[in-house]
Amino acid sequence: MSANPIEEVLNARSIAVVGATRDAGWGGGGFVAGLAPFGFKGQVYPVNPKYPEIQGMKAYPSLRDVPGAVDYVISSVPAREVPQLIEDAALKQVKVVHLFTARLSETGRPEAIELERKILKLARGFGMRVIGPNCMGVYSPAAGIAFHADFPKESGTVGLVSQSGMLAREIVLASPLRGIYFSKVFSYGNAIDLNECDFLEFLTDDSETSVIMMYIEGVKDGRRFFEVLKKAAATKPVIILKGGKGESGARATASHTASLAGALQTWESLVAQAGAIEAGSVEELIDLASSFRFLGPIKGRRVGVAGGAGGSSVLAADQCEQAGLDVVALPPEFREELKNRGVSVWDWLSNPADISIREDDSFSVGMVLEMMARDPHFDLLIAIMGMPGRGPQPGTSPEAFIAQQYRLETSRAKPFLAVVPDKSLGVGNMDSRDWKSLCETRTALIKLAVPFYPTIGRAALAANKVFRYYRGRNGASDAH
Amino acid sequence: MSANPIEEVLNARSIAVVGATRDAGWGGGGFVAGLAPFGFKGQVYPVNPKYPEIQGMKAYPSLRDVPGAVDYVISSVPAREVPQLIEDAALKQVKVVHLFTARLSETGRPEAIELERKILKLARGFGMRVIGPNCMGVYSPAAGIAFHADFPKESGTVGLVSQSGMLAREIVLASPLRGIYFSKVFSYGNAIDLNECDFLEFLTDDSETSVIMMYIEGVKDGRRFFEVLKKAAATKPVIILKGGKGESGARATASHTASLAGALQTWESLVAQAGAIEAGSVEELIDLASSFRFLGPIKGRRVGVAGGAGGSSVLAADQCEQAGLDVVALPPEFREELKNRGVSVWDWLSNPADISIREDDSFSVGMVLEMMARDPHFDLLIAIMGMPGRGPQPGTSPEAFIAQQYRLETSRAKPFLAVVPDKSLGVGNMDSRDWKSLCETRTALIKLAVPFYPTIGRAALAANKVFRYYRGRNGASDAH
Repeated sequence: MSANPIEEVLNARSIAVVGATRDAGWGGGGFVAGLAPFGFKGQVYPVNPKYPEIQGMKAYPSLRDVPGAVDYVISSVPAREVPQLIEDAALKQVKVVHLFTARLSETGRPEAIELERKILKLARGFGMRVIGPNCMGVYSPAAGIAFHADFPKESGTVGLVSQSGMLAREIVLASPLRGIYFSKVFSYGNAIDLNECDFLEFLTDDSETSVIMMYIEGVKDGRRFFEVLKKAAATKPVIILKGGKGESGARATASHTASLAGALQTWESLVAQAGAIEAGSVEELIDLASSFRFLGPIKGRRVGVAGGAGGSSVLAADQCEQAGLDVVALPPEFREELKNRGVSVWDWLSNPADISIREDDSFSVGMVLEMMARDPHFDLLIAIMGMPGRGPQPGTSPEAFIAQQYRLETSRAKPFLAVVPDKSLGVGNMDSRDWKSLCETRTALIKLAVPFYPTIGRAALAANKVFRYYRGRNGASDAH
Repeated sequence: MSANPIEEVLNARSIAVVGATRDAGWGGGGFVAGLAPFGFKGQVYPVNPKYPEIQGMKAYPSLRDVPGAVDYVISSVPAREVPQLIEDAALKQVKVVHLFTARLSETGRPEAIELERKILKLARGFGMRVIGPNCMGVYSPAAGIAFHADFPKESGTVGLVSQSGMLAREIVLASPLRGIYFSKVFSYGNAIDLNECDFLEFLTDDSETSVIMMYIEGVKDGRRFFEVLKKAAATKPVIILKGGKGESGARATASHTASLAGALQTWESLVAQAGAIEAGSVEELIDLASSFRFLGPIKGRRVGVAGGAGGSSVLAADQCEQAGLDVVALPPEFREELKNRGVSVWDWLSNPADISIREDDSFSVGMVLEMMARDPHFDLLIAIMGMPGRGPQPGTSPEAFIAQQYRLETSRAKPFLAVVPDKSLGVGNMDSRDWKSLCETRTALIKLAVPFYPTIGRAALAANKVFRYYRGRNGASDAH
């Protein structure tokens, strides 16, 4: 059997939830609902002296009363009861304990800090490994383990390591809206034992994980983190969102996971030198995961844009340029071909190709994208979708409509990104045809494995970071 | 009668649409649908030799065949027919012509540039004023004039001047989702006669307009623009989005409205010196319009944040700080009051107030916001809403729920902004309870006149720009 404690959790044959409750929606009860009902095939032992039965399963008054071995314990008991729990777990030869239990060093209170130290010392004495405290632990669809029963049962190829459990939940639930599913997710909180490096190393070697997302508030050992991150980033894309970068954010990390957030400058150069990718917000973290998940390497910055109209085409150019892309002018050969194909606006059309410039039906968005995909002057393509009245129509297959409209068979020969706007709808707009058409477009793009972004600025920023990541991996220096 | 040509349009008693078509959804037909069916009370004369009747109205073969006077003409005829139209219009003593007609100087073609010059010369000879060419003209709910029949009939207090007609349409349709309605909107395209300065001057003096939005690709006369903008910004907030700021965007403006986009640096300092507010995208333009529309002056940068949980609270702090706000630590008196009120986490709670820090029910988001509103250490408040399961519940009034939850009666004593996330939903998510709850929250916030933003970063950026605008108007220097 593997000595890696994370493997032990993922291969656990029996799991006890101590401090289990009847409420499947939250806390100890949520973890029970995230095991057998979620798909865990091994033994589940809810433990709580108050109830003979929890969520249809026999419950035990204490861990010691559980029959047989227990590989992994999830603790939802109050902090003061954890030392006793560790002793009980030692008797059951438990290998790993996940402490959902919180209110320890993150409170800043001396007695809580002392208790946390005592817990670690006890566990170390028994050779027991600890995840947490103050975190949500492990989610693995393949292992049938989740923080909550409402997590996707579908496995994916993206891994997530998050110091915050609430944020891990937010990311796990928001990512499928962009077509992203997870291999393994680890929420590790105060990290008194297993920490960001252990989980990152695990995902680096995990063949089921092709992209790694991280949310970190503070690292325990900067030197080790740099080495582990460098190795990880050389193997697969690692996207990092750092919490506590500012003064007030650093104060907030202290009361959240008792982390000491390091100096901003040092952090940013550490990430860049390791070859990892920084995200500035949860939204960008998901944009980047989607980009790395669905795009191959991007070999240059020369972008071709099509599908906007009027001012939005002008702004598309500005926003691509601001994000570091090169919105190249249409090359003369390109215009020549437009002319030869009978396009009346051959001399007027530009990049971005503005679909409101039209004298007749002699050109289409798909035609322009197809030509850009074949032309060696372009490295990547961005298609602006979701213009009112131009989406999939009722009764036709949205996938077929999009594939035909944007000539995906040819145009996806280059890295291809789509823009589909989000809208701050109110109750009166929920049934509008245009809104449904946006939802259909997104669902179709997920099926077609085309990444999409709510604004062209976000698409362009993500594309440039994908370009830079692969260029860095190929050993070129990054001057941009 | 007023000599101002814009007044002439808004007070027109009779309007002819030349080049009208039967299709109410587009082009000349769209303008017909945007008059009588939209609410225009005067005479409407559709003109097109092909049809005896258009959209239920008698149509005329030419402008000369129209009985009686015509105050305003909307032209949808091909460019080559415009000179004849101008001559016909002169016979009918038309005061203003709006040329939706395009394919003039923006094509870059010498013969089209020459034709545009000829049109202007002809109109000048007759003392006739021109809006456009290559634009959508005028939208005024009060006058009953719209570019399209699907524009809101509701009047508001925000004015918009947009060089792009497509973008004006996008903004007019997206703004009501944030509670913004318009007094007057002008789309002015190639601006051969009436230009950005004329429309901006008009809105500066317009008592129905309290906030001005602009989208500009290039200005005709930088000196006049600076003076007009300075006067406007001293009177009411003017928010400007500039298209063609980069090299490729500048190229795109040439083929869009034949504008020469000026140097970026010069532009930014011009706007700042005039006391106007720059927006970097359409999204930010609408964020800012919403902020100025629904908030009063913001007197300082010290923000109190409540409603996030875990990592999202940490990131909220970072993003407020990045946007230039000051996320002040909870003052000692504040902690003292928390303690006196029996809040067990009085020593642990922070700003942002993390709602996942709770040992019991001794504090709530509303309580914290109320205390921040009363405390002199805070200048403005941001409430993070839309957490899953925490929105309005079925059967209760969302307005009452929100007012009570965030104690709006007290907490709105300070400028109060809400964060409600947008979600990139697919077809499978449209009926989810959480999604409906977000829509209900937004609709309720509009009714309550509370501005909301999809991310805290966007809320904070907007708040800082509101602060700076009013500080600038009060004569302080802007060092930030």
